[in-house]
Amino acid sequence: MEAKRSLLAIFLLLSFLSISTATPTRKTRTRNPCKSMVFYFHDIIYNGHNAKNATSAIVGSPQWGNKTILTGKNHFGDLVVFDDPITLDNNLHSKPVGRAQGFYIYDKKDIFTAWLGFSFVFNSTQHKGSINFAGADPLMNKTRDISVIGGTGDFFMARGVATLMTDAFEGEVYFRLRTDINLYECW
Amino acid sequence: MEAKRSLLAIFLLLSFLSISTATPTRKTRTRNPCKSMVFYFHDIIYNGHNAKNATSAIVGSPQWGNKTILTGKNHFGDLVVFDDPITLDNNLHSKPVGRAQGFYIYDKKDIFTAWLGFSFVFNSTQHKGSINFAGADPLMNKTRDISVIGGTGDFFMARGVATLMTDAFEGEVYFRLRTDINLYECW
Amino acid sequence: MEAKRSLLAIFLLLSFLSISTATPTRKTRTRNPCKSMVFYFHDIIYNGHNAKNATSAIVGSPQWGNKTILTGKNHFGDLVVFDDPITLDNNLHSKPVGRAQGFYIYDKKDIFTAWLGFSFVFNSTQHKGSINFAGADPLMNKTRDISVIGGTGDFFMARGVATLMTDAFEGEVYFRLRTDINLYECW
Repeated sequence: MEAKRSLLAIFLLLSFLSISTATPTRKTRTRNPCKSMVFYFHDIIYNGHNAKNATSAIVGSPQWGNKTILTGKNHFGDLVVFDDPITLDNNLHSKPVGRAQGFYIYDKKDIFTAWLGFSFVFNSTQHKGSINFAGADPLMNKTRDISVIGGTGDFFMARGVATLMTDAFEGEVYFRLRTDINLYECW
Repeated sequence: MEAKRSLLAIFLLLSFLSISTATPTRKTRTRNPCKSMVFYFHDIIYNGHNAKNATSAIVGSPQWGNKTILTGKNHFGDLVVFDDPITLDNNLHSKPVGRAQGFYIYDKKDIFTAWLGFSFVFNSTQHKGSINFAGADPLMNKTRDISVIGGTGDFFMARGVATLMTDAFEGEVYFRLRTDINLYECW
Repeated sequence: MEAKRSLLAIFLLLSFLSISTATPTRKTRTRNPCKSMVFYFHDIIYNGHNAKNATSAIVGSPQWGNKTILTGKNHFGDLVVFDDPITLDNNLHSKPVGRAQGFYIYDKKDIFTAWLGFSFVFNSTQHKGSINFAGADPLMNKTRDISVIGGTGDFFMARGVATLMTDAFEGEVYFRLRTDINLYECW
């Protein structure tokens, strides 16, 4: 009798399990990151006089713009390519642990906002591989979320969300972004 | 005896379950969207005379092009940045529910086709967050599928497919795209 | 007695199963690709004299660059749009099975490296649909991994990694990339 009741319990449990395994992509998502990291990257825009130190340059601009000064109208239309050092703290002169490489493109006339496509590229004893990002960066907001759309090497098949914070902004030449990366898919 | 047969049945069931849970990423995908939405967005390209109304501008062009007229050869090489209003219906003058921000770049000499990288950015009572898109847009086809590569806020970690349809095309200045978004990964 | 021991075993197994099904996105990932493909694509950059054969063109450049010659400093800042034929072997003159469409942007002063956003677009009896890619391409490395960020049609919702190899590099006008695509999410 006890055995029978136990069997019934097991069957019920199995039914529940079999339902939950039938739709794992819907029901078992967790919002606890499987990996969290914080990095800073540093952008020095070429302005015609700083070729040696510059880490980025304007390579596209609207009809009314040019390639050495970010245009008016909130830089609308300026396309900037960058290869910026990544550091573990907010010091530009700390030893870089990788490079942030890609582009941003200012896309709004009324306020500063940009669209980003870039990668963090690591090749050190600590990290090897890359993390790829894309998304909108309404940079007047204190924090902005973009997507981690993939990764390679140590970050094979990663997906997640990165939160950007402007950590410093000096004139129109230097800015520093804090990047809090939270991966929710790790392989 | 009955208990033994039941146990055998349970073991067989368990074996099956353990196989199916071992490869959930292969076997349990469903092509039923977990979320479907339809939006329209409206693009008015700067042509040198419409600075006030324009929502996009040419910021890159091939050697034979310029920044105020889309070039010949099916606009091959023109890079356009946009910040377009998103509406729920096909009326340019409806209240925008968000902004479509990013770029497209015409990439073929023989026919009109483009590559898109952009985001839908929402900040209303109805939706907060962003949906990020990338993909090829062979815009002479009636419908074109691109990828939803990620999302933030209400669209946290979203993935899916968006189907674009040219809903209107007026001269070389205005077009309107209907966007049917189907998400297949929702968190 | 035997039945009781069996029941205990089943309960232990069930506990284990229920733990593993609770976090399938963490524990059941496999690094065996669900689909592998090899393609070649061929890029002929417009240099002012080869308009008929060219499959790509410079459409953005830094202040010191121009649109017909890739700039010095490892082409830093050159943005190139392409519509390249895809072939199954390494012969430029083989029948194309699709088109590689998108852009690359050289993003480093010290060595050749680029950021890629592009799609493979297929419309043949063999393949219909598109595969979308993004990532960093440090092109002096023998192999480079980028992300498959999505797909449509036959490649609906695909994710994976593509390994690029420079298969030929002739002067500054022609190069050929071998692309080994490994998908790890197939629907």
